[in-house]
Amino acid sequence: MAPSSSPLLTSESGEKYANVKWEELGFSLTPTDYMYVSKCRQGESFSDGKIVPYGDISITPCSPILNYGQGLFEGLKAYRTEDDRIRVFRPEQNALRMQTGAERLCMTPPSTEKFVEAVKQTVLANKKWVPPAGKGTLYIRPLLIGSGAILGVAPAPEYTFLIYVSPVGDYHKVSSGLNLKVDHKYHRAHYGGTGGVKSCTNYAPVVKSLVEAKSSGFSDVLFLDAATGRNIEEVSACNIFIVRGNIVSTPPTSGTILPGITRKSISELARDIGYQVQERDVSIDELLEAEEAFCTGTAVVVKAVESVTFHEKKVKYRTGEGALSTKLHSMLTSIQMGLVEDTKGWMVEI
Amino acid sequence: MAPSSSPLLTSESGEKYANVKWEELGFSLTPTDYMYVSKCRQGESFSDGKIVPYGDISITPCSPILNYGQGLFEGLKAYRTEDDRIRVFRPEQNALRMQTGAERLCMTPPSTEKFVEAVKQTVLANKKWVPPAGKGTLYIRPLLIGSGAILGVAPAPEYTFLIYVSPVGDYHKVSSGLNLKVDHKYHRAHYGGTGGVKSCTNYAPVVKSLVEAKSSGFSDVLFLDAATGRNIEEVSACNIFIVRGNIVSTPPTSGTILPGITRKSISELARDIGYQVQERDVSIDELLEAEEAFCTGTAVVVKAVESVTFHEKKVKYRTGEGALSTKLHSMLTSIQMGLVEDTKGWMVEI
Ligand SMILES: Cc1ncc(COP(=O)(O)O)c(C=O)c1O
Ligand SMILES: Cc1ncc(COP(=O)(O)O)c(C=O)c1O
Repeated sequence: MAPSSSPLLTSESGEKYANVKWEELGFSLTPTDYMYVSKCRQGESFSDGKIVPYGDISITPCSPILNYGQGLFEGLKAYRTEDDRIRVFRPEQNALRMQTGAERLCMTPPSTEKFVEAVKQTVLANKKWVPPAGKGTLYIRPLLIGSGAILGVAPAPEYTFLIYVSPVGDYHKVSSGLNLKVDHKYHRAHYGGTGGVKSCTNYAPVVKSLVEAKSSGFSDVLFLDAATGRNIEEVSACNIFIVRGNIVSTPPTSGTILPGITRKSISELARDIGYQVQERDVSIDELLEAEEAFCTGTAVVVKAVESVTFHEKKVKYRTGEGALSTKLHSMLTSIQMGLVEDTKGWMVEI
Repeated sequence: MAPSSSPLLTSESGEKYANVKWEELGFSLTPTDYMYVSKCRQGESFSDGKIVPYGDISITPCSPILNYGQGLFEGLKAYRTEDDRIRVFRPEQNALRMQTGAERLCMTPPSTEKFVEAVKQTVLANKKWVPPAGKGTLYIRPLLIGSGAILGVAPAPEYTFLIYVSPVGDYHKVSSGLNLKVDHKYHRAHYGGTGGVKSCTNYAPVVKSLVEAKSSGFSDVLFLDAATGRNIEEVSACNIFIVRGNIVSTPPTSGTILPGITRKSISELARDIGYQVQERDVSIDELLEAEEAFCTGTAVVVKAVESVTFHEKKVKYRTGEGALSTKLHSMLTSIQMGLVEDTKGWMVEI
């Protein structure tokens, strides 16, 4: 969509920023002006979608997204630089992950090109909702849902690809680090399930564990593998790393954890500064003996783990100035915010 | 809703039956005239809902049902008797199961009374879509979905309870019995997951397995437990029983299979005619050595298993006249269709 032909220019031209209290942003919904919507018959290709006013969508009660959880989502962010450019972090990675998920759930996904183009259009249409540099980011939520009518358990005859956005601040309100509870009752995923893709079906099942942990004062929940209960997998919406000496370890993406894009990027950055990064099973015992632990994800960025509680045992970790997570956080956000040159080609300009 | 005050009487009074080719009904959607919709804030109680014309619903893109799979469904049937009464099978059991599911997914469910009343109203409003006796049934699909807007993974601030219906015929088109494929790649559920409730999140993940099996000519898929891969659990949308001599066995409802209402009813009927019914782990080996196997569920009713294929091995079972499943099918449907007296109080008159 060339800006000159955009139907949105009139509404945009008035003011540079939407009326948002940027300082008060947390990770909650601030509805914006526009969203992107595109539909496609099963097995066909998504053609160009439309930027429409943000608001409720209309859907048949008999759709697989409402009845059978046939849905995928993505999460990525747009950043405003000091010199007022707007850039998105690795959107093609989200496009590819949505395609992997679509394959798993028998859905028809948009092509990488269509996905990235749609992300750009949506951000452009909501430009004035991208927070000022350093004040937050525009969280972008692409959805792919089985929207056509079908009664039995089967792929939907029609899919809807939709993108909405919201300006956001920090995901967790804690400053020093996360206080994680290890869940020994609920599991998030199993082999032969959907833990390795961003299926909506992986999330409602963890809400109870999350609500219980938060009501006991924890920041989030760390899940163990369902097969043995001995290895750590990931947190409700982010990946986890442990640090010991020069070695950074993180569970492998073998089908039960989400292959995080931040995880992948942080692994690369850690290697860049001389750490050895191992993707392998990490036992709960190893976590309890680590010097440091941290989480990565689009929403949390890179966040130190301050403590882990397993049954009655609580272990504390290095956080703050001397922590590797602090260094990696700074390296990543410097690229994202345009403070250093993006030598890796991660940022896509809108 | 007293029939005399129903806003629907005018539309109903015209003809007794909708224009449906009853003989051609399969298990697919035939849209009807009305659906039931009710909304409720999180933690509050559902008040009386409304019967509205069947059609698309309006929902925020930022709802947990679209993003995180926060949804439950139910399935039950209304039957027309020879003397033209319309009755529903054990609706309070579906209400209770929805409540168990709501507890697991941190949702606010309708009370049993509200649920049953809503089912009655929906059937009444769609009376002319209930097939003539012996020609099919009216399938009733209650949905409970997290419909309020929230960005992060958390319980929805608002829930929608909705019921739609469709006249249906047989779920599987096979006449003699089901040809099941044992899945040794995908699993349906794990301990600490949601396999024991009718969460939408249990269904999209099995579609791929189902599509693959059907494309190889199988009727359906039988899943093994994710923990050991040695015990049978259930079929994509029904429970399974095996028969050996006087003993009928079925996997226990310990969190990874759905506690089927047909399963429970059939267990009772089998005991009534002198069989010993065991709820216990059933290994795949035992299944392969059984004399008979059958499936139970609202959609399939009671259906003989004709064959089971595990890896390269295919085993055949007793079906037809001499099979226990034929006897149990007849006992159950006789009650449902009003051919024998309902001494158990299972049928609820509309
Ligand atoms: C379960 C889970 N793990 C990890 C992540 C991190 O992935 P990414 O870094 O791509 O945001 C997410 C998404 O944010 C997630 O939902
Ligand atoms: C996975 C699964 N198992 C079993 C059943 C059978 O349950 P019911 O007899 O209550 O219909 C169903 C639902 O129909 C189901 O979806």
